[in-house]
Amino acid sequence: MSTRPAATAISPEQAAVEQQLVETVIASFEGTQDSRLKQLMQALTRHLHNFAREVRLTEDEWNAGIEFLTDAGHITDDKRQEFILLSDVFGLSMQTIAINNETHKNATEATVFGPFFVQNAPEIPIGGDIAGGASGQPCWVEGTVTDTDGKPLPEARIEVWEADEDGFYDVQYTNDRVAGRAHLFTDQDGKYAFWALTPTPYPIPHDGPVGKMLEAVGRSPMRASHLHFMVTAADHRTLVTHIFVEGDPIIETGDSVFGVKSSLIKRFVQQPPGTPTPDGRELRGTSWARTRFDIVLAPTLDLK
Amino acid sequence: MSTRPAATAISPEQAAVEQQLVETVIASFEGTQDSRLKQLMQALTRHLHNFAREVRLTEDEWNAGIEFLTDAGHITDDKRQEFILLSDVFGLSMQTIAINNETHKNATEATVFGPFFVQNAPEIPIGGDIAGGASGQPCWVEGTVTDTDGKPLPEARIEVWEADEDGFYDVQYTNDRVAGRAHLFTDQDGKYAFWALTPTPYPIPHDGPVGKMLEAVGRSPMRASHLHFMVTAADHRTLVTHIFVEGDPIIETGDSVFGVKSSLIKRFVQQPPGTPTPDGRELRGTSWARTRFDIVLAPTLDLK
Repeated sequence: MSTRPAATAISPEQAAVEQQLVETVIASFEGTQDSRLKQLMQALTRHLHNFAREVRLTEDEWNAGIEFLTDAGHITDDKRQEFILLSDVFGLSMQTIAINNETHKNATEATVFGPFFVQNAPEIPIGGDIAGGASGQPCWVEGTVTDTDGKPLPEARIEVWEADEDGFYDVQYTNDRVAGRAHLFTDQDGKYAFWALTPTPYPIPHDGPVGKMLEAVGRSPMRASHLHFMVTAADHRTLVTHIFVEGDPIIETGDSVFGVKSSLIKRFVQQPPGTPTPDGRELRGTSWARTRFDIVLAPTLDLK
Repeated sequence: MSTRPAATAISPEQAAVEQQLVETVIASFEGTQDSRLKQLMQALTRHLHNFAREVRLTEDEWNAGIEFLTDAGHITDDKRQEFILLSDVFGLSMQTIAINNETHKNATEATVFGPFFVQNAPEIPIGGDIAGGASGQPCWVEGTVTDTDGKPLPEARIEVWEADEDGFYDVQYTNDRVAGRAHLFTDQDGKYAFWALTPTPYPIPHDGPVGKMLEAVGRSPMRASHLHFMVTAADHRTLVTHIFVEGDPIIETGDSVFGVKSSLIKRFVQQPPGTPTPDGRELRGTSWARTRFDIVLAPTLDLK
């Protein structure tokens, strides 16, 4: 894309022509029956036109945009979703999460859901192992689930899932193995604990148009190391979040989908080989890690 | 899409979380080498987030958007361009034209190029016929090409193209016939004239996601009847435009791509069968029409 000189000032006649067009397009949606759809279409029109007018979009740039969307459409199939990646790298996915998970007192913050959740992952008991054969350093994760007043929430359902040490989720392999995912329930004191794998960084798929775009703007496709959580409890807002690994250099250089929030960065304390495990598990001389994640759920929102 | 209650006021904490995210994403493009690309990416980020925040975009709506783009990508191939249609029906194509063809004194206004132009259409002499076998009412088109001071521009190249009376361009048929398109040159007095077909209305392709969207918002896919022009002359800005037919009801109800400008609406005067033609052409008792289009080209823009 070539550099274009800064927009010269436009004449009042020109501004009027452009503004008239915006108003005509907005008016064309006036007959929309669904009032919410009308609001969305009219606002989208306004923001799209404001963008094009502000940057003085050239015809070549418009063409490049059409080609980009076309390429994104053509690489997208039932296993690859380039439009979600596009939304992710512009932070629009995180913004949508933020808008729909408004901050609530001390409730745990939400982050992106990602494309790798699977329904019906196996149930494990408290202290069980989610690895299911996935490779990586064993990691003990423990904590509580409470409400915003600190009251323990027993029987809260916790779904956890993560990539293996090579950066792949089970569903990215050609076999049908279920690995690196499970669900469990908190006990009567709202406590939970399980064995997982110490999270490691991996790139979002970057062999398509979004990857090319990241390269053109000098951004990395890497995601900060993370472990996914989805936590549900009656009368509470479902929490979809991650925990991140304190000290992961990608937190500093920038998570490619803007998922990191400082409250979600946790210490993963390395344990030398031979350190006794919390549940007496025998790790045959390998190192392991442990972390703590206390989860606070907001009450269900009253949609007024 | 369901109706959502008006957004409740958001807390300062929430607004801060959302604003912080916008700023983080904008900062992520700071290292872009190409300064124009950086400007585009940062502005796009700002406008996308402003849209989502203003409408309080729900996760279902975000999903519907991803699905819409996916469907648009899948219907797009080398003959069908759903993303251009999408840009068209949001008026973004016309806005890009407007931005890049700033009003200039009395110069003729531009409108959308459309997807049906073909290189190397046959040359015809002044007074020749562009129909090439395409069906429709004969229509005599004449006028001049001048600069903004009224000075005639000889040897200006005029490309014209149009749909037949069934609403199809030659390239939409399976045969390879070239019809309804040609180019000619103005004479030493800047004059031109040719036979064409009286333009008739037709819909943009509306069997895909854009068509579904138009239906959901109660808009018609019809384009106002028009005849395409592209006019080039040395030292002048190339003009891409249409002329529209005065009295065409679609001008009132709304051209689906917002191409109509009042200065481009021309009288097409109906001539009863037997009316002598300007060049003595024998039309064997059929009616015909005539119109006039005086074209004024702006000087080439100095890109300062």
